[in-house]
Amino acid sequence: MTIAGTTTGDRLVDRVLRGDHAAVARMLSRVESGTDGVHLQLARLYDSGRRAHVVGVTGASGSGKSSLVAALAQTYRRRDRTVGVLAVDPSSPFSGGSVLGDRIRMGDLAGDGGVFIRSMATRGALGGLARTTVDAVTVLEAAGKDVVIVETVGVGQDEVDIAGASHTTVLVSVPGLGDAVQAIKAGIMEIADIHVVNKADREGADAVVAELREMLRHARYRRPADWRIPIQTTVAITGDGVDEFADAIEAHREWLSESDALARRERDMAASRLRNIVTGLVLEKLDDPATGDPFEKLVDRVARRQIDPFTAANQLLERTLS
Amino acid sequence: MTIAGTTTGDRLVDRVLRGDHAAVARMLSRVESGTDGVHLQLARLYDSGRRAHVVGVTGASGSGKSSLVAALAQTYRRRDRTVGVLAVDPSSPFSGGSVLGDRIRMGDLAGDGGVFIRSMATRGALGGLARTTVDAVTVLEAAGKDVVIVETVGVGQDEVDIAGASHTTVLVSVPGLGDAVQAIKAGIMEIADIHVVNKADREGADAVVAELREMLRHARYRRPADWRIPIQTTVAITGDGVDEFADAIEAHREWLSESDALARRERDMAASRLRNIVTGLVLEKLDDPATGDPFEKLVDRVARRQIDPFTAANQLLERTLS
Repeated sequence: MTIAGTTTGDRLVDRVLRGDHAAVARMLSRVESGTDGVHLQLARLYDSGRRAHVVGVTGASGSGKSSLVAALAQTYRRRDRTVGVLAVDPSSPFSGGSVLGDRIRMGDLAGDGGVFIRSMATRGALGGLARTTVDAVTVLEAAGKDVVIVETVGVGQDEVDIAGASHTTVLVSVPGLGDAVQAIKAGIMEIADIHVVNKADREGADAVVAELREMLRHARYRRPADWRIPIQTTVAITGDGVDEFADAIEAHREWLSESDALARRERDMAASRLRNIVTGLVLEKLDDPATGDPFEKLVDRVARRQIDPFTAANQLLERTLS
Repeated sequence: MTIAGTTTGDRLVDRVLRGDHAAVARMLSRVESGTDGVHLQLARLYDSGRRAHVVGVTGASGSGKSSLVAALAQTYRRRDRTVGVLAVDPSSPFSGGSVLGDRIRMGDLAGDGGVFIRSMATRGALGGLARTTVDAVTVLEAAGKDVVIVETVGVGQDEVDIAGASHTTVLVSVPGLGDAVQAIKAGIMEIADIHVVNKADREGADAVVAELREMLRHARYRRPADWRIPIQTTVAITGDGVDEFADAIEAHREWLSESDALARRERDMAASRLRNIVTGLVLEKLDDPATGDPFEKLVDRVARRQIDPFTAANQLLERTLS
């Protein structure tokens, strides 16, 4: 049913709000490519007021986190929750073109209308991967998903930012990779709400658990409030421990709602999202032919060392953007 | 000699311009922490007009790229070129706090006034790691370094951006890690000017070379101009092949200067730098108490879902920033 005067984008929004997966896929492509008008459509989707619990799952390549995400999605489905999965890890087997792909059995999830899986392009539109991913979460929320799982590899500031833009952040370690130590470096350790030691049937799993426990004891990683960061052990490919892992996420969600932590976290998420959108809009203005001419001229002058980039940037702010 | 009326920052700039390493270290700390007035100081350093050849060296953890960077720096020293090294990889052994550190023999470089080595904090100031790193390059150039080597791990958009902000971008692969394939995913493959297969004495090195050669044959990775991307083989810890690697960088530098590629590359570098500084200035404005109040209020309203973040961002641009 098409109302005269509505655009393709408007109709797409309506279909997303009805939970139509084909429309969700098309809307996500618009988000990724920064199609004209996508902001208006995202605003409408946001205004639906629908909320999902956003779970960030982070871990190094080889930690089996994609298998874990698949197992977690299946667990949610058994509990009658609908699930969206966004894979930001370029080496994730969810990515269509993955060459390295572990063999995960996605067969159980494919064809289930309650699950939507999408891998995000790693070279995002203006505003960066973090912004694109957060916008994609808005699309999945509006489509009625109860839980959105965002899978990232825990290296790089973008990935840390994305993991931070979650209600519950999960760090996956694994015996034999020395992940825990690497994760500290990347700043992920500080933002984990739940630790999972996957492939827990392997030798060395107990040592990883002990190492994590020792690190959590360290004051720097202790959360100010009364959430006790659990360390779960799982074997994703057999499903061992995945129910308990899902329970831990539920417990964290309940803790967030009962304390003022949820409001604080949503405020932080809103602030970083707003920053991202504003800088994205500024970059669009610079590239806009209508306003972009002074930018191109200043770029030439900077490249020729006729003006330093700091003075040039201030001139741009004063002239172009005001 | 202190001239009345000059500030600490001005005096620091003078000392950096004289090549004083202690001053360089302090200036880099200012760059990293975004100290007040650092832009004015960077503008003065930029205006010195001194230029370095910037070499980005990227590769996965375990590729031995830190050893390779150390060996390359030594080679440059033997050729009487001064060298600056910026390590952006959080797991780099150049990082003070590195736990994983391969054993590289930095002893040969430590104490040499012609080499300055610094590891960059991975959680950068406003404007991100890419901007901080480019500013750090400006400091090292102004201090008179002939070559600045920027070491990054090839994962994450920041790292790709940093690698892209080089005159010569080197991608380090290694047998047994499947790096080449992962690097494609991260978008690094497309920007490599030189390939190095390190640990070339290991089994599988020939296969990696063959794989890279096959990839380079693929049209997508072919450079438009007449630079033929070489594949160098090295054993960094013995020094095998490092001279030839340095020669390849020199050849690329000469090719850049003789074609219009240098001008194009410097233009691209200037454009992305200007974009970074502008967005950084915008973020500073948002966080500035004088102008930041509307930002905080809008963040609250977005968090409470009273306004969507896209409308809020447009209001910020119109009201706060103009």
